[in-house]
Amino acid sequence: MNLTKLLPLLAILIASTGQAQVQNRIVIPDILGFKTLQCDFHIHTVFSDGLVWPTVRVDEAYREGLDAISLTEHLEWQAFGRDIVASHNRSYEIAKPVADNLDVILIRGSEITRSMPPGHFNAIFLSDSDALAKDDWRESFAEAKKQNAFIFWNHPSWDAQQPDTTLWWNEHTEILNNGWMHGIEVCNGNLFCQESFQWCLDKNLTMIGTSDIHQPIQTDIDFARGEHRTMTLVFAKERTAEGIREALDNQRTAIFYQNQLIGREQYLRAIFENSIEIIDISRGQTHATVRLLNKSGLTFRLKKTGHGGDVVYFRDYEIKPHSRHSISVRFPIEGESRVNFEVTNLLVSPGQGLQCSYRIN
Amino acid sequence: MNLTKLLPLLAILIASTGQAQVQNRIVIPDILGFKTLQCDFHIHTVFSDGLVWPTVRVDEAYREGLDAISLTEHLEWQAFGRDIVASHNRSYEIAKPVADNLDVILIRGSEITRSMPPGHFNAIFLSDSDALAKDDWRESFAEAKKQNAFIFWNHPSWDAQQPDTTLWWNEHTEILNNGWMHGIEVCNGNLFCQESFQWCLDKNLTMIGTSDIHQPIQTDIDFARGEHRTMTLVFAKERTAEGIREALDNQRTAIFYQNQLIGREQYLRAIFENSIEIIDISRGQTHATVRLLNKSGLTFRLKKTGHGGDVVYFRDYEIKPHSRHSISVRFPIEGESRVNFEVTNLLVSPGQGLQCSYRIN
Amino acid sequence: MNLTKLLPLLAILIASTGQAQVQNRIVIPDILGFKTLQCDFHIHTVFSDGLVWPTVRVDEAYREGLDAISLTEHLEWQAFGRDIVASHNRSYEIAKPVADNLDVILIRGSEITRSMPPGHFNAIFLSDSDALAKDDWRESFAEAKKQNAFIFWNHPSWDAQQPDTTLWWNEHTEILNNGWMHGIEVCNGNLFCQESFQWCLDKNLTMIGTSDIHQPIQTDIDFARGEHRTMTLVFAKERTAEGIREALDNQRTAIFYQNQLIGREQYLRAIFENSIEIIDISRGQTHATVRLLNKSGLTFRLKKTGHGGDVVYFRDYEIKPHSRHSISVRFPIEGESRVNFEVTNLLVSPGQGLQCSYRIN
Amino acid sequence: MNLTKLLPLLAILIASTGQAQVQNRIVIPDILGFKTLQCDFHIHTVFSDGLVWPTVRVDEAYREGLDAISLTEHLEWQAFGRDIVASHNRSYEIAKPVADNLDVILIRGSEITRSMPPGHFNAIFLSDSDALAKDDWRESFAEAKKQNAFIFWNHPSWDAQQPDTTLWWNEHTEILNNGWMHGIEVCNGNLFCQESFQWCLDKNLTMIGTSDIHQPIQTDIDFARGEHRTMTLVFAKERTAEGIREALDNQRTAIFYQNQLIGREQYLRAIFENSIEIIDISRGQTHATVRLLNKSGLTFRLKKTGHGGDVVYFRDYEIKPHSRHSISVRFPIEGESRVNFEVTNLLVSPGQGLQCSYRIN
Repeated sequence: MNLTKLLPLLAILIASTGQAQVQNRIVIPDILGFKTLQCDFHIHTVFSDGLVWPTVRVDEAYREGLDAISLTEHLEWQAFGRDIVASHNRSYEIAKPVADNLDVILIRGSEITRSMPPGHFNAIFLSDSDALAKDDWRESFAEAKKQNAFIFWNHPSWDAQQPDTTLWWNEHTEILNNGWMHGIEVCNGNLFCQESFQWCLDKNLTMIGTSDIHQPIQTDIDFARGEHRTMTLVFAKERTAEGIREALDNQRTAIFYQNQLIGREQYLRAIFENSIEIIDISRGQTHATVRLLNKSGLTFRLKKTGHGGDVVYFRDYEIKPHSRHSISVRFPIEGESRVNFEVTNLLVSPGQGLQCSYRIN
Repeated sequence: MNLTKLLPLLAILIASTGQAQVQNRIVIPDILGFKTLQCDFHIHTVFSDGLVWPTVRVDEAYREGLDAISLTEHLEWQAFGRDIVASHNRSYEIAKPVADNLDVILIRGSEITRSMPPGHFNAIFLSDSDALAKDDWRESFAEAKKQNAFIFWNHPSWDAQQPDTTLWWNEHTEILNNGWMHGIEVCNGNLFCQESFQWCLDKNLTMIGTSDIHQPIQTDIDFARGEHRTMTLVFAKERTAEGIREALDNQRTAIFYQNQLIGREQYLRAIFENSIEIIDISRGQTHATVRLLNKSGLTFRLKKTGHGGDVVYFRDYEIKPHSRHSISVRFPIEGESRVNFEVTNLLVSPGQGLQCSYRIN
Repeated sequence: MNLTKLLPLLAILIASTGQAQVQNRIVIPDILGFKTLQCDFHIHTVFSDGLVWPTVRVDEAYREGLDAISLTEHLEWQAFGRDIVASHNRSYEIAKPVADNLDVILIRGSEITRSMPPGHFNAIFLSDSDALAKDDWRESFAEAKKQNAFIFWNHPSWDAQQPDTTLWWNEHTEILNNGWMHGIEVCNGNLFCQESFQWCLDKNLTMIGTSDIHQPIQTDIDFARGEHRTMTLVFAKERTAEGIREALDNQRTAIFYQNQLIGREQYLRAIFENSIEIIDISRGQTHATVRLLNKSGLTFRLKKTGHGGDVVYFRDYEIKPHSRHSISVRFPIEGESRVNFEVTNLLVSPGQGLQCSYRIN
Repeated sequence: MNLTKLLPLLAILIASTGQAQVQNRIVIPDILGFKTLQCDFHIHTVFSDGLVWPTVRVDEAYREGLDAISLTEHLEWQAFGRDIVASHNRSYEIAKPVADNLDVILIRGSEITRSMPPGHFNAIFLSDSDALAKDDWRESFAEAKKQNAFIFWNHPSWDAQQPDTTLWWNEHTEILNNGWMHGIEVCNGNLFCQESFQWCLDKNLTMIGTSDIHQPIQTDIDFARGEHRTMTLVFAKERTAEGIREALDNQRTAIFYQNQLIGREQYLRAIFENSIEIIDISRGQTHATVRLLNKSGLTFRLKKTGHGGDVVYFRDYEIKPHSRHSISVRFPIEGESRVNFEVTNLLVSPGQGLQCSYRIN
C-alpha cells in the first residue's frame, strides 16, 4: 500500500501524544544545600508486563513533575511476548526522545526477576540491558556490576515470594558481599516493609521507594483525592543523572509513601524545618500564639510528647499541605518552657517518628 | 532459560490486571420499552496508535459501566509496527476473554483510514478484520459490506482532513448509494459536527458518538470533575450484540457528549420525562410549587420560551444530576396556564433544544 | 417602612434555602434485623458558637443522607450573644420545619458546657432546653434526667480540658451512679479517645461518635477526597426518633470515624459480612480464586493472621468501597485449610481489629 | 452564672475560627502596569438573609485568595430579624478584625432592596450603612451619594423582578442622571445579563460580577470540579481600598464568570497575552510547531476565523489552566501567513469573542 499520501496526516496523528499537559508537582523543599529530586526507579510498560506504551510513562512523570524515572522491564518475563518481540533496551529507546523533550531524566534500567531467593532486583544506570539476560542469576548480577549499575532489592516482603515473614536469605548476604546490592525498596506501591527499613539503617544501604506501576498511573493513584505515587526523594548536588547517581551512592534519599516520609533523621528534620515558616509569634507572660505556614505539599501529624509541667498545648495536631495555622501555648511565668512533639508521619526508624523540641518563651 | 519455576509466580503477576475495580455507571433511564445501553464504538490500542494494551480498554469500560465497546484499530496505520506485528484481529482476540469475564459486550471492528475523500470510516460487527486490508478503499468497503458490517463515517469535521469547512464529497454519495454508510459520527471526542447532525436527520442515518480514545481514558477525561467520555446511547430490545445491531440498523440511538444529549426528538423527550420524577405539586389559586427529583445522572438546562401573559416562573434553570428541586410558578386565577421551556442541552436538531410545555393549573 | 409590596419577592428570596440538593448517602448495610441509621448528635449553629444558621445543618444532613441529627447548642456559652438573644430551644424550633420537609429526624438536645470536671456533656431527647440552664451543673443533669434525656460525655480527651492524659474523675463516677451518663463520645471530629472506647466496653455504655461541627461542614470535611463526618451508626428497629432512642438505650451503636468502624464485635462482624458478597469461587485441588464484591461504601483493610502451614494468600489487602476483587489462595491437597485475617480498620477494642477465619476448601 | 472560670477555655473555643486554612488563588496575570485584584462586592450573611456568620465570609475569601470583599446586607430585609436585631453596620464590624488579620480588604457596603423599579442596588465604600435606611428609595440613593459611595445596579435580569425581558425603566435614567449609578452587575451568581453588558459599553459604566452568595460558598460552588465564584477583576494601581475605588471609578474591571472573561477589549487582550508564554517555535519552509505554556489559571477556547488560503491549523482548540501545548501550522512557501482565531470565552461585547491574529512565518 502506498503510504506516501498518508504521511502528513499521520504526523499529526502521532503528534497527539503529549500535546497538552498540565504539571502538578508536589512542593517538597530543597535541604542542606541539596536539590530534592522526585524520582521513581521501578516502572513497567508493555515491554514487560505493564499495560501502557513507554512514552505514556514519560507523560505521567511530566504531569506529576517527577525529575527522573527508570523503565525497569523484567528481563525474564515478557507478558506480551507473542506480540511484542524486542531488545531489552527497546523501552528505553522509545521513551528517550520524549523524555528529552519534556526534560524528564530517563535512566536505563532492568528488573532481574527470579524466584526467592534472591527474588527481584532492579539494576539502574545500565549501558546495555540485553547483556543482563542470563540463565544464572549470579551472571546477571555480575554483568550489572560490570556495567557499574546501582542495584537494589525489590519488595522483600512481597507476599507472592515471602508469604508470611520477610526473610534475609544466605543469598542476600552473598549478594551484599559481592557488591551487588546498594539499596533496598523500603516501599513498593502500597507495600511498606519494616524489615527493609531496619536493614537499610543497619547495613548503610540506600532507601528506595517506587511505584512499581503496571496500570496507567491514574488507575492506581487517585490524584483528585490527594494520593501520590510512592517515590524516592533524592538529595542531589545537581539535577542530572550523574547528580542522582552520586546521591544514591551516598545514601542521600528518603521515601515519600502515602503522605508519610521515611528516611534518615537528618534529612527528615531538614524537610520539616524547611517546610514550616513561622509567620510571627505573639507572646504574653504566660501565653503565646504561633502563626505558621506550611509552604510544602506535605502533611505533618504532630503528637505531644513528654514536656515540662504547666505547659499546655495540643495533644494531636495535623498540618495539611500549604495551610496556615495559629497555635496557642500556655506556660508558667517562670523558667524556660519547651513544646515537645513527635511528627508521627516522618519516620526515622521503624515505628519511630521525628522528635522535635522548641523553646517557646 | 527455564521458565518452569517462574510460572506460579507469573500467574499471580498477570492476574493483577483488573484485580480490583469500582463501577461508576452514569444513570440514564430506559425508554419506550427499550434498554438504554451505553456504548463506545471507536477506540484504539497499541495495535494501531493507541497507547494502552487492549485489556485496559475493557477495564476502563467496566469501570464506567459501559455495555459495549469496539476496538477499531486502523487497518492502514500501525504506529508501533516496528515492535508489534500482528493480525488486524489480534486486539479483539486479546480483549475478548477479559470482556466476557467482566460482562462487557465486545464487538469486532476496524477503522478504514484514508485521506479525504473519503476520510476515515469504522466498520463494526466484522467477522475478520484482516480481510479488509486492501489497497483500494472501495475494496475495503465492499469486503466490510460482504461481512455484513455496520459502517459509519468518522469525524467528518476533523481539521486534519477538512481544515476549514465540512464538505460532503461525491465519494460519500457513492458510498451511501452502495450501502456502505449506515451512520455518521456526530460527535468524536471533543468534536461536535453540526453538519453530521443535519445529514443524519436528512438521510435517515444512525447518529454515532464516540471517544476515539488513544490515551489512557483518565488522561483525557477528568471523571472527578464530572466529565464523561463521548458515547452512543443505543435503545435496544435486549442487552446483547444482536440487540445493539438491531437498534443501530433502525437509527435508535442518541449521543451523550459533554453533558448534552443529541438525537431524535422522541428519544430525548422520553429520556427527559423518565429522568424527572414529580414528587408533589402544592397548588393555590394563583401559585404552585412543584417538587421534583432528577433520578438520572444527566444535567438539564431549561430556558423559558414564549408563554401566556401573567404566568411567572424561572427564566433559566439548571437541574443537576440526582438533585431535588422546588420550583415556584405564579399564574392568573382564570384560565389554563402553561409553563413552556426549552431544554437547551437536549438537542433535537442543530441549534435547537427540546421544546416542552406543561399545564400547571 | 411598608413591606407589603416586598412580600411576594421575599417569599422567593427565602425559598432559595435548600432549593436544589443532591443526596450522597454512604451505603452501610442493615444488620441483624435492624436498620442501620446514620446519626450525628453533636452539632452547633450561631445559637451557640457555630457559624451557620440552623437550617444549614438540616440541609447538610439531607445532602449526606443522614437519618437523624441533634443541634446541641452550649447552654452556658453564646459566642454571638451580643447580637443573638434567644431561648435555648430556638435553634431546634427554626430547624424543625425544614427537617420535617426533608425527612431528617431532628432530636432536641443541648450541651452542658462546664470546666473539667465534669467537662462537657450532651443531653438529647429533651423536651425543654431552657429548663437545663442552671448555675449548678448537678441541677442541669438532674433536670435532664427529669426530662428523660439520653446523656453522654463529650470528648473526654479534649486537650483544652485534659491537656496530657485522659482522666476519669470522681465526678464522673457520681454522674454515672446518678444515672446521668448513658454513653461517651469515643470519637469527636478528628479526635479518637481510646480511654472512652475501653470505658464503654467496661461499663456497658453506649458508644457515640459525632462531628461537633462548628464550621460549614464542607470547610472541615473534604467530601471530594472521600472524607466523611464522624457519626454514630444506630441499629434501630425502626427509622423514628423512638427507634433511635430504644437502640441508644440498649447500646446498639457503632462509630464511623475516618473510614474506620469502632464498636462491639457482633455489630462490626455483621456489617463486614453483609457488605461483602461472594460472587463465585473457582476451586482446584490446591488453588482457589474468590471473586467478591464490596456492596458497601466502606473500606476494609485486611491483614493476614496466623494460619495453617502451606496456605498461601495475601499479607495485606485493601477492599475499597463498591469494588470488585479476585483473590487467589493456594493450599495443600490434604486437610481443611482456612484463610485467617484481621480487619484492621474495624476496631472491636482498643488496638484490636475484627478477627476473621474462613474455610477455603 | 459565673463565667470567669470558663474564659480561658472559651478563648480557645472561639479561636477555632480560621485556625487552619489553605489558600487557593486562581492565577490571573497583572496587566498594563496594573495589579489584577480579585474582588466580590455582593455577599450576604445572617445579618440579612445569608446563612453564615460574617467571619465565615472572610475565611472563604482568604481561602480563595480574594483581595477584597464587601458584605452587602439588605437594608430592607432581615430574614432572621426575630432573632438578630442589630445595626446595618454590624456585619462589617464583626468581620473587620478577621479581615485585617488575614489581609483581606473589607469594604463597607449595603444593598438597597426595592421592588422593580428600580430593583436592587449595592452601595459600597459607605461610611455608615444605618443612614441609608429610609422609606423613600430616592432618599437612600441620595444618602449613599452623600457618603461618596460607588453604586451599581444588581442583577437587572433577575426573573423574580423582570420575569420575561430585561427592561431599562425611566427610574434608571433618573438614577443615572442623578449620579446614583456607576456600574451594573453584568453577572450575578449563575446569571449573565447580556443587556447589562451592552448598557455598560454604551453608557461607559463599570462592569461588575458578583457571587451574591447566601449559602456557605462550597454549597453553591464545587471547587473540586474547577468551579469558581463569579467575581470582578479590578485593575488597580495598588492593592488597597483606595486603589480599588480609583479603578472602579475609571471602569478598569472585567468579570470572571463560569470560566469566561467578560470586559472591555484592551483588558481581555492583555490578560490573554500575559497568560500565554511562547516557549519556542520550530519553523520549516511550510510548517511550524509552536510550543506554549498557559501560565494562568484561566481556560481559553480558540476558534479559527477567516484566514489566508493554504494556511492549515486547528478549527477549535482548548487551552486549559497551567497547560503546555504543541500547536502545528502548515502554510504556503511564499508570502506572509497569519493564524487568525477568536477566543470565544473572552467576550468583548455580547456574543463577540476576542479576535486575534498572529503572523506565523
